[in-house]
Amino acid sequence: MKFNMRSARDGVAALAACLVMVGCATGEAREPEHEVEAVFASPSTPSPEAHAGEAAAAEVHADALATYEVPPPKAEHANVGEPASAVAHGLERLNVVTDFSPEVSAPRLDPSAFLDPLASVIGAVEIGQRVYIAPFASLRGDEGQPIHIGNETNVQDGVVIHALETIVDGVGQLQNTVQVNGAHYAVYIGNRVSLAHQSQVHGPAWIEDDVFVGMKSLVFKAHIGRGSVIEPTANVIGVTVPPGRYVKAGTTVTDQATADALPDITDTYAFRSLNEAVVHVNTSFADVYAGRKPAHAPNAKPAPTHPK
Amino acid sequence: MKFNMRSARDGVAALAACLVMVGCATGEAREPEHEVEAVFASPSTPSPEAHAGEAAAAEVHADALATYEVPPPKAEHANVGEPASAVAHGLERLNVVTDFSPEVSAPRLDPSAFLDPLASVIGAVEIGQRVYIAPFASLRGDEGQPIHIGNETNVQDGVVIHALETIVDGVGQLQNTVQVNGAHYAVYIGNRVSLAHQSQVHGPAWIEDDVFVGMKSLVFKAHIGRGSVIEPTANVIGVTVPPGRYVKAGTTVTDQATADALPDITDTYAFRSLNEAVVHVNTSFADVYAGRKPAHAPNAKPAPTHPK
Amino acid sequence: MKFNMRSARDGVAALAACLVMVGCATGEAREPEHEVEAVFASPSTPSPEAHAGEAAAAEVHADALATYEVPPPKAEHANVGEPASAVAHGLERLNVVTDFSPEVSAPRLDPSAFLDPLASVIGAVEIGQRVYIAPFASLRGDEGQPIHIGNETNVQDGVVIHALETIVDGVGQLQNTVQVNGAHYAVYIGNRVSLAHQSQVHGPAWIEDDVFVGMKSLVFKAHIGRGSVIEPTANVIGVTVPPGRYVKAGTTVTDQATADALPDITDTYAFRSLNEAVVHVNTSFADVYAGRKPAHAPNAKPAPTHPK
Repeated sequence: MKFNMRSARDGVAALAACLVMVGCATGEAREPEHEVEAVFASPSTPSPEAHAGEAAAAEVHADALATYEVPPPKAEHANVGEPASAVAHGLERLNVVTDFSPEVSAPRLDPSAFLDPLASVIGAVEIGQRVYIAPFASLRGDEGQPIHIGNETNVQDGVVIHALETIVDGVGQLQNTVQVNGAHYAVYIGNRVSLAHQSQVHGPAWIEDDVFVGMKSLVFKAHIGRGSVIEPTANVIGVTVPPGRYVKAGTTVTDQATADALPDITDTYAFRSLNEAVVHVNTSFADVYAGRKPAHAPNAKPAPTHPK
Repeated sequence: MKFNMRSARDGVAALAACLVMVGCATGEAREPEHEVEAVFASPSTPSPEAHAGEAAAAEVHADALATYEVPPPKAEHANVGEPASAVAHGLERLNVVTDFSPEVSAPRLDPSAFLDPLASVIGAVEIGQRVYIAPFASLRGDEGQPIHIGNETNVQDGVVIHALETIVDGVGQLQNTVQVNGAHYAVYIGNRVSLAHQSQVHGPAWIEDDVFVGMKSLVFKAHIGRGSVIEPTANVIGVTVPPGRYVKAGTTVTDQATADALPDITDTYAFRSLNEAVVHVNTSFADVYAGRKPAHAPNAKPAPTHPK
Repeated sequence: MKFNMRSARDGVAALAACLVMVGCATGEAREPEHEVEAVFASPSTPSPEAHAGEAAAAEVHADALATYEVPPPKAEHANVGEPASAVAHGLERLNVVTDFSPEVSAPRLDPSAFLDPLASVIGAVEIGQRVYIAPFASLRGDEGQPIHIGNETNVQDGVVIHALETIVDGVGQLQNTVQVNGAHYAVYIGNRVSLAHQSQVHGPAWIEDDVFVGMKSLVFKAHIGRGSVIEPTANVIGVTVPPGRYVKAGTTVTDQATADALPDITDTYAFRSLNEAVVHVNTSFADVYAGRKPAHAPNAKPAPTHPK
């Protein structure tokens, strides 16, 4: 039994939409009378719908929650010699119950997503369509929860996604969440976002659509506006980056005044169209590594003929 | 046959407490007459018991050394659907004999530590109680040796621990060690230390108790005093950080004058209590991922009831 | 059927020396009439043989290309208790065909190279003699291609090597290549280069012989001259570093004027001989982890006797 990130439409925290159940991962009958209420404190990350200093009482009935089956074990590793179509989803694992994680969850991957056999996803992580997850990426929905990865987003080699606690001893920690469309998340990553090699997103964090997070960059306790670019080796901690801005390579932004003064992306900005290309490449990987497309992409141009 | 880090109580280097033996990992009889003496040069990292410029002759008899059995191969990977209790220690491996590593060693893990099935530990690494080691962490005790990880310490996703040579052609390289309680180590990490995601500790290095090493940070040729905080993306190279200080995000400290001037942690410091929370989370992971606790932590508060 | 990086001796791009073939990885007969011609645009990375603004037509006949067999699946993981000689090459995998990668390739490793069982190499990657590749390194020849790793070079823990597209819809992207000895590469790494833990090389990139790339450093769209040192946590983006220079820890070089003014390595430079030692250590790992040397290195000094 899982909390449902999408059915919480009434402004209360989907985060709390879980039952504290011993053994729920082993198929025992769930017990609706053990419902959880989460009372959230104020968020530290600004969001349109979160009101600082205000505690929101959340009540979510078990009957309103979608359930899903724990998927069967997958083939773990593909090796040279196997056809690409045999490459299955990688290592999906359950989180464990602790005083900050009241429920056992299994990751939810859209069937069109591809998880490299050497990547790891644990716990309350929801992964959208055509997402590509590269070798040695670690997505851990076992502390702050849930983690949302939007459609056509990519999580490249060695990337880590994790989050500070969102529940402690049954009490929600709203300051460690971001609120998107009326639901609370530890990490919310939108559509067509690139998380380049060895970057890290640590919740609380909200990354809007079409953002490029560069190689080796860190986003922590931060909100990145739509279409912005975090250049390689840049870091964003504790601030909101407005939409359409860029953070220069090698810089670390930790105060809001600096974030507000970040330069706009203009027509001449060198990395202006980088994310679009990176998303194209990685959605192709999602499509083809999973063997769902013919080996030769149908929209590829025919091979040019010899010059005469 | 292993060198024993704890039995070297007389101030000589436990580091040298090994026999150069071909085939010692395959169970052949050890030959005590092949004893090793290491002569160390001066250390570059200040420590109370190391005297710069002085070579310390170390003589360690084989009879004084504890031996331990090479553990049997473990189940490597747990997949979705397995109960948490089936998750075993991950990939523990032997180092190899080279001209800088005269002995084959197997890692020593306290039974209460948890090594993720996708983590790797090689060689002369000693891991204490309730240590949690996350996916894709690589602990390599195959160059500088030994590496000590204290109790209730955590080694998060993608962390690397390695060290410069501590022996070359049978001669100890004291300048590449730290001396703690009379014994020499390539890396000594104390109790309740957090090594956050993608950080790195490269020996020679000594990290005292209750230190937080932030996400993506590097500690190299350095000594970090008790209770200090290396903020995310900060780096410390070639210096000693006094106890109770912090290094700001995005900064790289490479000279001792800067290290001496680092600010004190005060009551209002934002990350003052971060490490305590992180240690709580990660010792919980060590306890529960290994299946040693009931799925529902007994000290968790009961689920709150509905507000009426 | 592979393109051959070494047989393209006439100055045209070996990069294009491939056939677009559906199913070539599954053993179907190749069809030489499907030859590819690549037309390259101008490179952004300066190289002596690349002419900015000039399109070079490349025609490579299939008959001129070397073929090699896809190696059989390897044992994936070695665990404690196995003799070192049983540790085989790790996870070598095929790339997939996309509109930017017209051919399925398998990595080519010299038999004297060692790929850790927990490392991953995908696609058009050529790996030279005595190369050591550590746990959780990811070498991905599935976007920009090919990637060349020279002799006695090391790729340490968690390192990522990847590259921007070098072909799009059958058209070469010369601006994303480097030209070395008359052939184009996405990434060319010379001999005796160290890529220290958690560093990253992202193509287009050319690293000449005897370079040390420090822990956590990034080299992207860059050319590093022979014998230079990129100190730990330093980054080089979009520039050429002259030979024999060093980049200080914690700095990020993104403009050519700064690169040209980098300090020379002198006799007193602290890391002057670091790379030589690191190469020695890692070629030893390549030799011994693969079980090709006796366990006790024959050139190791005998164990010293007791002081009297």
